[in-house]
Amino acid sequence: MLPFIRSDLAQFTAYKPHPSSNTAEPVTTKFDRLDTNESPEDLPPELKEKLAWTYQQVIETNRYPDGGHELLKDAIAEYVNESANLSSALFTATNISVGNGSDELIRSLLIATCLGGEGSILVANPTFSMYGILAQTLGIGVVTVGRNQTNFEIDIKAAQTAITQTQNPPIRVVFVVHPNSPTANLLTAAELAWLRSLPEEILVVIDEAYFEFSQNTLVGELVQRPNWIILRTFSKAFRLAALRVGYCIAHPEAIAILEKVRLPYNLPSFSLAAALVALQNRQLLLSSILQTQNERDKLIATLAQHPALQVAESAANFVYLRLQSNNSDSQNTTLQSLHQQLRSAGTLVRLLNEGLRITIGTPEENSRTLERLQAAMANFEYLVSSS
Amino acid sequence: MLPFIRSDLAQFTAYKPHPSSNTAEPVTTKFDRLDTNESPEDLPPELKEKLAWTYQQVIETNRYPDGGHELLKDAIAEYVNESANLSSALFTATNISVGNGSDELIRSLLIATCLGGEGSILVANPTFSMYGILAQTLGIGVVTVGRNQTNFEIDIKAAQTAITQTQNPPIRVVFVVHPNSPTANLLTAAELAWLRSLPEEILVVIDEAYFEFSQNTLVGELVQRPNWIILRTFSKAFRLAALRVGYCIAHPEAIAILEKVRLPYNLPSFSLAAALVALQNRQLLLSSILQTQNERDKLIATLAQHPALQVAESAANFVYLRLQSNNSDSQNTTLQSLHQQLRSAGTLVRLLNEGLRITIGTPEENSRTLERLQAAMANFEYLVSSS
Repeated sequence: MLPFIRSDLAQFTAYKPHPSSNTAEPVTTKFDRLDTNESPEDLPPELKEKLAWTYQQVIETNRYPDGGHELLKDAIAEYVNESANLSSALFTATNISVGNGSDELIRSLLIATCLGGEGSILVANPTFSMYGILAQTLGIGVVTVGRNQTNFEIDIKAAQTAITQTQNPPIRVVFVVHPNSPTANLLTAAELAWLRSLPEEILVVIDEAYFEFSQNTLVGELVQRPNWIILRTFSKAFRLAALRVGYCIAHPEAIAILEKVRLPYNLPSFSLAAALVALQNRQLLLSSILQTQNERDKLIATLAQHPALQVAESAANFVYLRLQSNNSDSQNTTLQSLHQQLRSAGTLVRLLNEGLRITIGTPEENSRTLERLQAAMANFEYLVSSS
Repeated sequence: MLPFIRSDLAQFTAYKPHPSSNTAEPVTTKFDRLDTNESPEDLPPELKEKLAWTYQQVIETNRYPDGGHELLKDAIAEYVNESANLSSALFTATNISVGNGSDELIRSLLIATCLGGEGSILVANPTFSMYGILAQTLGIGVVTVGRNQTNFEIDIKAAQTAITQTQNPPIRVVFVVHPNSPTANLLTAAELAWLRSLPEEILVVIDEAYFEFSQNTLVGELVQRPNWIILRTFSKAFRLAALRVGYCIAHPEAIAILEKVRLPYNLPSFSLAAALVALQNRQLLLSSILQTQNERDKLIATLAQHPALQVAESAANFVYLRLQSNNSDSQNTTLQSLHQQLRSAGTLVRLLNEGLRITIGTPEENSRTLERLQAAMANFEYLVSSS
């Protein structure tokens, strides 16, 4: 171990890049990539052409990007107001900060609140793993609680106990996803009541990465709650995962701090241009949401009929699948086997501790998902009954 | 102040975006932009076209970027070996980590070494301000020493004393730029001897952002020194400032830690593609270096003849200019006035505490720099003599 490295980083495990983004094993042509909750569709050719033109005619590659993001923040504020049916002047650029994906914003939030032994964070597992991973890289403690195994509601009693009892440092930030990943459920009334009851010295980060699929947002509540921050992304419904643009909506004082903490030129000019083009063409891009929702509901309805599967309701562009079984060891083995069989058949899905998360793809991909999953389950049942 | 924000962040001042990158005040058409050490030339049209084609035909906007960077790291390693006339197999992808500009790598280095009260950093002012700024956002202490006012050599005695005497936490990282910004000088033999004498628990970060202009690199020494890390960038000679790609060269163990600490998808696909294209066409892109060096030397020779100016030697793509005067108050006033007059005449340069930093632009821009500077100086002398 190099002696200038923080000792606690040695045993730390990083976020594992998805196989589909690993150049050492190119999968782009062989697989249905349903493991990262991306949109199955690229931007339409006319928008790619427009962006290519913008790069050639407008962007000076040799010049640093716009470090202020004002144009993009104005456009985002307009979309945010529209997305929540709010007055068009309610949120402005002063309520917006833009990051190199939501990841950068999560890191900035952690830096701004918890560093230097000032705070720990609270997450309810299973949830998006980056909150905990980024906290650990910064030496920030992560307190975890569980969820109800039926509706995936946070164990609110345990969460409240953790907040009351965690000291030195206290819990300073609570991270929730709305709808949650991987479990696909929206925040319940009880969860919301609990989040509203948290004192103003605890920051509540509500990650609405999948808002466009749920059409359920808490943006309207931000005005009364300076300790709430909402994260959103261009990586999912807006189809810009390759270009890394996330944003957050918050009280202007919180935004001012995030703007101080972020890297001054955090967004490349091409990514800034793409996010603007995506917003300008949002009607076109978001018109595919309905198909995704219909495909999702169809997939859930069919999978729900399988006696060995438990399929959760979903307010996102993915479904969460568990096995009907009381034995968690055999569950894990079966999940790993299902994951592997789907992969062998050509469908990449996400294997988690207690379930599989499957992104809604194109109708063709979703049909294959169903066929391959049913074949794998049949296989599995055959193996079990013949053993 | 919001109660969930770290108290030490309130008084913190962020890096000020350069005026030329502020969309609220578009300067791109009116000004010679010689304030950010960018290349004056964009990529040639055929390379922009190639990149635009790559975006349209190869990059899937809806898919997360390659999170492993293997192709780019291989190409960088090849260039690094070539740039130091080393065996083509000496450095490999295991010695390289890529960031969203060097800024992200600087932050990762700080996180990996100093966080949690484990260390402070040492810088010799004037130097690149981001080391100190990023350390402050992370609550990391910054110890500063001065430089010799003639050749800008670090005050080595003061630096060594700081290292011996700084405790709780000790100095864990020393940042140097080679050549330094804004003073344009290479590390001297004495500075190098001192850096070599530092113990292995102190990380030495050598920022070679301007290597292509100096053609002087310390890469060859890395093999014997696991506590040295070299930073480089595609933002200067490679003309990719808009796309934010920096890299570092280091011991594989240090790289492994940086890869753990960085955001998993830190580089957009378009930036990855552009850096690869730039490396593949490095002969073409770097062929303009000679002109920059000649223009720089001409500018220095002419400015050196002005009795009121002190112009330093430069191993970079910029010059550093001070005033001949013993009165630092009147110097500051004059510098501000010069900066403002150059701006009014149409040339943006960088105003620093004790001097002006002027980027080498196109031959036409450099001629105008000279004319405008001479006019401003004449103006100033007239004002002084008539007051």
